[in-house]
Amino acid sequence: MSVTAPRGFRAAGVVAGLKDSGTRDLALVVNDGPSRAAAGVFTRNRVKAAPVLWTEQVVKGGRLRAVVLNSGGANACTGSDGFQDTHATAEKVAEILADSAGEIAVCSTGLIGERLPMDRLLPGVETAGAELSRGDGGLAAADAIRTTDTVAKIAFRQGEGGYMIGGMAKGAGMLAPSLATMLCVITTDADLDAAALDRALRAATGVTLDRLDADGCMSTNDTVLLMASGASGHTPDEEAFTALLTEVAADLTRQMLVDAEGASKAITIEVVGAGSVDDAVTVGRSIARNNLLKCAVHGEDPNWGRVLSAVGTTDAVFEPDHLNVAINGVWVCRNGSVGDDRDKVDMRPRDVTITVDLSAGPHSATVWTTDLTADYVHENSAYST
Amino acid sequence: MSVTAPRGFRAAGVVAGLKDSGTRDLALVVNDGPSRAAAGVFTRNRVKAAPVLWTEQVVKGGRLRAVVLNSGGANACTGSDGFQDTHATAEKVAEILADSAGEIAVCSTGLIGERLPMDRLLPGVETAGAELSRGDGGLAAADAIRTTDTVAKIAFRQGEGGYMIGGMAKGAGMLAPSLATMLCVITTDADLDAAALDRALRAATGVTLDRLDADGCMSTNDTVLLMASGASGHTPDEEAFTALLTEVAADLTRQMLVDAEGASKAITIEVVGAGSVDDAVTVGRSIARNNLLKCAVHGEDPNWGRVLSAVGTTDAVFEPDHLNVAINGVWVCRNGSVGDDRDKVDMRPRDVTITVDLSAGPHSATVWTTDLTADYVHENSAYST
Repeated sequence: MSVTAPRGFRAAGVVAGLKDSGTRDLALVVNDGPSRAAAGVFTRNRVKAAPVLWTEQVVKGGRLRAVVLNSGGANACTGSDGFQDTHATAEKVAEILADSAGEIAVCSTGLIGERLPMDRLLPGVETAGAELSRGDGGLAAADAIRTTDTVAKIAFRQGEGGYMIGGMAKGAGMLAPSLATMLCVITTDADLDAAALDRALRAATGVTLDRLDADGCMSTNDTVLLMASGASGHTPDEEAFTALLTEVAADLTRQMLVDAEGASKAITIEVVGAGSVDDAVTVGRSIARNNLLKCAVHGEDPNWGRVLSAVGTTDAVFEPDHLNVAINGVWVCRNGSVGDDRDKVDMRPRDVTITVDLSAGPHSATVWTTDLTADYVHENSAYST
Repeated sequence: MSVTAPRGFRAAGVVAGLKDSGTRDLALVVNDGPSRAAAGVFTRNRVKAAPVLWTEQVVKGGRLRAVVLNSGGANACTGSDGFQDTHATAEKVAEILADSAGEIAVCSTGLIGERLPMDRLLPGVETAGAELSRGDGGLAAADAIRTTDTVAKIAFRQGEGGYMIGGMAKGAGMLAPSLATMLCVITTDADLDAAALDRALRAATGVTLDRLDADGCMSTNDTVLLMASGASGHTPDEEAFTALLTEVAADLTRQMLVDAEGASKAITIEVVGAGSVDDAVTVGRSIARNNLLKCAVHGEDPNWGRVLSAVGTTDAVFEPDHLNVAINGVWVCRNGSVGDDRDKVDMRPRDVTITVDLSAGPHSATVWTTDLTADYVHENSAYST
């Protein structure tokens, strides 16, 4: 299922030999049409990996025949040679599909600053091309894009009128503003043009994938692609399609949150009473990135002072003595000072919800993050060795 | 020595009983003149502790007779009652010195969101008043302001023409933009007016204390005070005084860097070739706050890709393919891509220097930070319990 849940798509996930572990590391997703309308959103990091530079150009055309993804190497900070490697990968897919490289997207994830072993990658693309299927292919592809992800992430939803949206994602660390090392491919057999897909994708990711901020580190490789085959023959209402797409993106976001590297808590930060949505997101991100608070949550300490301290670093509209904070439903801070008894807060569940009321307006936003743990330090100390 | 190295100052550090540990927790530093010119810089956090709100007002007058400091409680997020506590503390010092509370600064550090036990604090002020001395007082005061600091931090320098600058500081965590939970008192027997002291203090802290960014978390309580007794009768050249003050501040900064909570590495980030000093500082801070890089340094992994990834999140002037990065002197990244052999980098020393050349201009800046360790997580998970 996953990306092959909607009609018109085939996929494969194979072992190309890029990872030392010998597990699957190359995925291919092909859109057999009749439409090939597509949209994409990318990292806002100014240091962009070669596959991002390539795929941004490709997606500008509004059409994608296929996307090839590899784990085991980010192909970032690899100069013009690295860009040539991405180009050669797209050309190989185009050759297999007898199509144009200009409609082939490429995504990579893994260590920065090393060339990809093209002598293994290109034969891997051939193997993937031979194994494309509608059945197991979607799951194999989701498996092949994992790096430190402990599980493959897939989601799908049925829309009114007989169309489907399916998706796969990877991302366990570097999850921060703008989808950080997050790769995500979403497919649909709805019949929508590229402009409609672009609007829907930006709206859906803006409130889901883009608000997952595990460690504040923005990747060089983030890519989210939306591909439409039109094979259902149905053109859904754009608002309904966006809502369903948001559900799929939220489902994948939740899966990445729960699987984040070394985390023991999934933290939902709800900012309410904000003067604007931007203010709410700014405050939410500031809290999500506060290492001291993340340590406190790890220690099951409802340390609302660290929440206020994080809020105070932003330029959002608020008065310090009008701030209220609830942790798991207990309003431990009222009017910027001590509120209800902090001993009433049950911090034991894996899910922790922090609610901040800025008392400054009617707007709100939710940001997700994780706690900071010794396991996180351990996993990220030894990543490249 | 420390704050009592210059003539005209007495100090004390006593046990008031604010800390469960039963160690010193209250310090008093008194300026006996003849001058009492003073200046201060404070946290830029909008959620300010009561003692910061009080002391900002006091310092506006340009005169300080004394500063009273306590560890064992930040008196932050404690509302108007907490402000009254600060006021009462200043009044108690004024009473002992037969002076005006309007020239008494107050500093507090410790847990946010709890009232101070005034029934212990005020008698502690009396004890401190009785123990004021020029000899051991300076060291006892430096000892009393420690929280998780493992050692007291003091520094002093002799100026040309027979004047002294002395200082004490505390700060081991929450060290981030704007001096975060850093308390620092610097004294001098030079004869300078409040305006000159203010200029010198801003210049000195701007390139030292303000560029120590251990965990990106900005405190509610940061305060740096500079008090001049004029007792040397000497008015130094302002430029020379600023240079000497910068030396003292740099010395204290270094001591805080080396003692930072749970850190195993002291990281110096030199940004050169910047289009402006602001750009250099922005890039330096972005690197200093990148958890993934801080974990890599902890793991002794010269992961320059994470440096580039951090640089790419800023709006500084640079071209990605003109970036160069050296780690401990080895240029592992040249022109945004692979440079010299990363195996040549010796990551074993405690001191690690990361140099980033933006190739965009003649400006530079240095920012200091620490690595991210399991010990940091442990210390900050259990702080309030």
